[in-house]
Amino acid sequence: MWMPSQLPDIAKSMRERGFRGDPKQMANLATAPMNAVVKVGGGTGAFVSDQGLVLTNHHVAFGVIQYNSKPEHDYIAKGYIAADRSGELPANPDFRVLVTTDFDNVTAQVLKGTAGLKGKAYNDAVERASKALVSACEATAGYRCQVVSMYYGAEFYRVRQLELRDVRLVYAPPSDIGNYGGETDNFMWPRHAGDFTILRAYVGKDGKPADYSPDNVPYVPPSHLQISTRNVKEGDYAMLAGYPGITYRHRTAAEFAQQMDWQLPSRVALFDGMIRTIETATKGNADATVAYASQMRSLKNNLKRAQGELEGMQRSNSATVRAQDEQAMLAWLRGGKTGALDVAATLGGIQELQQGLATAGALRERDQLLSTIVGQTQLFRSAVELQRRALERQRPDAERRSGFQERDEKLILGRLQQVQRRYTPAVEQALLLDLVRQYQALPAAQHVAEWDAVFGTDPAQTADRIAALYAGSTLQDESRRVGWLHADARALTAADDTLLKAAALLVPAMVRLDDERDTRDGESLRLRPTYMQALIAYRKSQGRAVYPDANSTLRVSFGRIQALSPRDGVDYRPLTTVAGIAEKHTGSDPFNAPQPLLDAIRKGDFGTTAEPSLKTQTVNFLTNLDTTGGNSGSPVLDADGKLIGLNFDSNWEAVSASWAFDPRYKRAIHVDMRYMRWLMAKVYPAPHLLRELNLPAQ
Amino acid sequence: MWMPSQLPDIAKSMRERGFRGDPKQMANLATAPMNAVVKVGGGTGAFVSDQGLVLTNHHVAFGVIQYNSKPEHDYIAKGYIAADRSGELPANPDFRVLVTTDFDNVTAQVLKGTAGLKGKAYNDAVERASKALVSACEATAGYRCQVVSMYYGAEFYRVRQLELRDVRLVYAPPSDIGNYGGETDNFMWPRHAGDFTILRAYVGKDGKPADYSPDNVPYVPPSHLQISTRNVKEGDYAMLAGYPGITYRHRTAAEFAQQMDWQLPSRVALFDGMIRTIETATKGNADATVAYASQMRSLKNNLKRAQGELEGMQRSNSATVRAQDEQAMLAWLRGGKTGALDVAATLGGIQELQQGLATAGALRERDQLLSTIVGQTQLFRSAVELQRRALERQRPDAERRSGFQERDEKLILGRLQQVQRRYTPAVEQALLLDLVRQYQALPAAQHVAEWDAVFGTDPAQTADRIAALYAGSTLQDESRRVGWLHADARALTAADDTLLKAAALLVPAMVRLDDERDTRDGESLRLRPTYMQALIAYRKSQGRAVYPDANSTLRVSFGRIQALSPRDGVDYRPLTTVAGIAEKHTGSDPFNAPQPLLDAIRKGDFGTTAEPSLKTQTVNFLTNLDTTGGNSGSPVLDADGKLIGLNFDSNWEAVSASWAFDPRYKRAIHVDMRYMRWLMAKVYPAPHLLRELNLPAQ
Repeated sequence: MWMPSQLPDIAKSMRERGFRGDPKQMANLATAPMNAVVKVGGGTGAFVSDQGLVLTNHHVAFGVIQYNSKPEHDYIAKGYIAADRSGELPANPDFRVLVTTDFDNVTAQVLKGTAGLKGKAYNDAVERASKALVSACEATAGYRCQVVSMYYGAEFYRVRQLELRDVRLVYAPPSDIGNYGGETDNFMWPRHAGDFTILRAYVGKDGKPADYSPDNVPYVPPSHLQISTRNVKEGDYAMLAGYPGITYRHRTAAEFAQQMDWQLPSRVALFDGMIRTIETATKGNADATVAYASQMRSLKNNLKRAQGELEGMQRSNSATVRAQDEQAMLAWLRGGKTGALDVAATLGGIQELQQGLATAGALRERDQLLSTIVGQTQLFRSAVELQRRALERQRPDAERRSGFQERDEKLILGRLQQVQRRYTPAVEQALLLDLVRQYQALPAAQHVAEWDAVFGTDPAQTADRIAALYAGSTLQDESRRVGWLHADARALTAADDTLLKAAALLVPAMVRLDDERDTRDGESLRLRPTYMQALIAYRKSQGRAVYPDANSTLRVSFGRIQALSPRDGVDYRPLTTVAGIAEKHTGSDPFNAPQPLLDAIRKGDFGTTAEPSLKTQTVNFLTNLDTTGGNSGSPVLDADGKLIGLNFDSNWEAVSASWAFDPRYKRAIHVDMRYMRWLMAKVYPAPHLLRELNLPAQ
Repeated sequence: MWMPSQLPDIAKSMRERGFRGDPKQMANLATAPMNAVVKVGGGTGAFVSDQGLVLTNHHVAFGVIQYNSKPEHDYIAKGYIAADRSGELPANPDFRVLVTTDFDNVTAQVLKGTAGLKGKAYNDAVERASKALVSACEATAGYRCQVVSMYYGAEFYRVRQLELRDVRLVYAPPSDIGNYGGETDNFMWPRHAGDFTILRAYVGKDGKPADYSPDNVPYVPPSHLQISTRNVKEGDYAMLAGYPGITYRHRTAAEFAQQMDWQLPSRVALFDGMIRTIETATKGNADATVAYASQMRSLKNNLKRAQGELEGMQRSNSATVRAQDEQAMLAWLRGGKTGALDVAATLGGIQELQQGLATAGALRERDQLLSTIVGQTQLFRSAVELQRRALERQRPDAERRSGFQERDEKLILGRLQQVQRRYTPAVEQALLLDLVRQYQALPAAQHVAEWDAVFGTDPAQTADRIAALYAGSTLQDESRRVGWLHADARALTAADDTLLKAAALLVPAMVRLDDERDTRDGESLRLRPTYMQALIAYRKSQGRAVYPDANSTLRVSFGRIQALSPRDGVDYRPLTTVAGIAEKHTGSDPFNAPQPLLDAIRKGDFGTTAEPSLKTQTVNFLTNLDTTGGNSGSPVLDADGKLIGLNFDSNWEAVSASWAFDPRYKRAIHVDMRYMRWLMAKVYPAPHLLRELNLPAQ
């Protein structure tokens, strides 16, 4: 997961593996191919035409498809092909395509005011400086900026992204293709999914980002990737660019232990409980089932991921391995042959960091539950967000918490607008009841007076209290809910609405808890760089480079198409074929291949998209590329930069790679572009799109 | 699944595959190696020492281990090593080792009285002739004989077997080795089980079969197999001899369709229901759990097998394939170029067979349920067996139904004696209730007046009726239960015992249903040979030989050690290693490898038993040999007749092979003898047994 700027340093290694391009050019975000790689929704995508077509995963664009689906035109089930531009369907209002245009080291500016500070003060100073940088950067309309830390606060970069707000659905296969295998196959190689969707970014007539309007025109990207028409095979060079969300590979040994002993087991229990609650509450209700489809999908994905992470870390004995590595680093430090590193200060800083982490764990159950309650509800979250926004707006914009500044208004509006499509009162109340009861069962030391006041401490009465909260609220009315955006703080506090009243009580408590967390985060931000600098120096002494842990910024990985031996006695081939689709087909979800697909497989008419060595159509392939969540939709390029695959999954053996990277097991799973081309040519034809993509018709 | 007598005919093919021995000698049951292959319990085994040691599967000998296990010395959990002969533990009384000594074609004798007969009369004539042959054969004490039909009544053979009744437990690994992976891994390659157990057959001091006595001496077999000390690898020749139970490959197309459409789905539902019932009824009761362990194991195995058979037949589209084959055969017949075959008579006979089969299906649900009720209970079955025995004994021995003749007395006694160890009243009543209620739910046309009289027709009262049956019976007292063997029919009919009274009512109904079935079976026995002769002639016209469907007689299969591609994208290696044991280990059942095994794997001290090419210890291997249930424990021999493996399982893709053989998927799974040798040398050492087996100590 190299920063593009690191690529020239590792150019030799890239060329040795077969790369025929120029690593220096790949370091330049303003030129091809990197300026074609974009952030899409929660994942990655790439421009693939000069008229703004964006290729990403079906599951990344799933919210867009769902937003446009109704029982009478169910694009989830049936897929969608826009016959022409006028048929391209607007995405949900908060859906974004972000094009990274600049990536500047601003470490000096961010840290210049932090000398001598600790805790929240350190955190606030960093945030203040960051906000000032963001504010200046966003002076140009149509851009979003952020300051991100690399190596956990050791370096800071300002990322500038063009924010395309009018995104439309152009081509989606039926879910039985895009999500073939569903949760059963999720993370399970061999896979057979056509997990892709094509969107188009639009801008105003002036070429600048704009909200949706029928008058908008397609965005003309500075460059786009060309989908390959060549064949691919085991051993071929491959590389991938995208926005990996978060990794923890450089966390401390104690954090590795906590992850295995508490975090993952508790997450499994939490997600599992929510899934059961939603399943029970939506049973037999088609509207509710559609409304919660996206949330359920995300919960199930997260549950399986947590289970896999735990299994993988146990298999690799990750906590022990990390502990031994950390001990070796400390021993190396104590040995004193550390060059410019101040050993005493470094060891002291590391010890201080370790102590801080040790005490922070005392409130972990509560913190996890309260953030889940806000994050997994719609109406309740709307009330909290409205009150929090009103409170924050009493301060100058620069001092407001991130997420509640002027620049966030459109996102808040988007979230408030889409509540209706993702919510039913009965399901949300069941979910809230389940989560609040878990909070109520925590030890007294973890309780928060305001939360106890709102939900009570007697679990037997919680259901009634929650029912009353929803009965006395009119927030389910979209116009009223959005209307509160125009009210001031006093009006909101006084609102005769039970949910808003509850939120008015809870938000000050949230602010207080956030401040407490800021203090802990500040110490972490202050002290982790010491740990990281020690680790970087130690690795350098071993002749190894260190990339920063992933943080949703643009990264590059390179490697090759590679098979996998997942366990004793079993070998996985690196390419799957359409034979596997027919083999898995049962006629019912999640293996319910559409009849046109089965017919086309039986017919065997694969044309130019067949793999000659296998004499059949390939579907997915496997590489050893380094990915994590957020890399969904990442373009996979060949040695010449041509687009050969679309990343969409990891293998089960690799899901713990966000913590511990093990080259024996780490693989990434991609849609073979030849499968996409075949579907678009022969199964659900879209000849006009193939032409635009500069691809053969057959 | 060739009859040994067919081997000389296919000698060329065997030699081409690599066999270095003499196929003619293998056709001789009276010489090595075939006279070392024995029937053990429900499976197969082989003599492996000149002092009567018998090698078979842990799961074949499981009943013997269970019979000797108590909470205070749990040989299931801990395994067992007899320190010397005096420590060898007697098996359950009905456990047998059978040595086939003769196999004679008696077709002429069996069929000579059947001319012009039909239905039950035909069946009775065959049975009468068979019994006479058996009776004469069994005149020599210590032998069991049977007449078996080949090609469904086209040919008959008399099998003569030496019946060894004193069998003892010598060496069993812990169940966590012998059954590593349990039901989870059952049928699932790659496997890692040490599924073997060593028994010893004893005889009286006169060298003749005898009941258990401390004075008995080890049986000296006429020959025994030598366990190989050579390495084995992919592609090596392999062959296997054993007693495959039953296959249906030559059944009619209509029977294939019924199997897929009714029999397998209904069996899945039946077994699944019984498993749930027993699980619920034994929960939290350690004694009951032990008592039902063997039955549960068998039910789970059967359930999974039925599921796999259905899946496999669906995958191979077996009913359609068979129907097309049958149509082709009929077309060939109608074409008239059939040599000696009388076309009109053949077509007429086949039509008659088809009509008979079509009408026989009307009572299938009832027949399945009633036989399950008797077969899956202990006390209820005892009552039925006692009454049936008394009824049958009113007739001359030769006219009694098979299973109730003088020759069967010891087996009946054995079953009556072991009831206590396999039974608790609450569990049996729960099971009976479940099954009877299913019977009650059948349409009236399938009801039997006597069963309705005993259990009533109102499901709400069934539980009370069953409770009363058990409350009013003293059959749970072993001495009373066995004591009834000395009573005459009148005394049994008049017995003041509710279960015996119920059985007295039911047994005449069972006799009636048996007679009705005999009529159907007789027609089948009369008409199937026509179908088989047509099939054999048709196959001959295609240049192909036909082996008879399996029927628990000694058969031979030959082939090689071979990998498997079970599905798109996946390759299975043909040998597994101890690395897989550690990988699968979770610390809880069914993957709870014993610490001494894990320690030994970690230590890596494999000595002469390691596979040089893999530099580690192998565990199981895969061949393309043709097997089915009953082949459990079959010795796998190399090209020189040395014992290299012990058959114990099939792969999931092959469980439908009892109906439809598909060489792409059919594999058999064996314990690598090197794994057994390593366990006995290094993990649970038994140097005295390695010496007796003529094997290296390390």
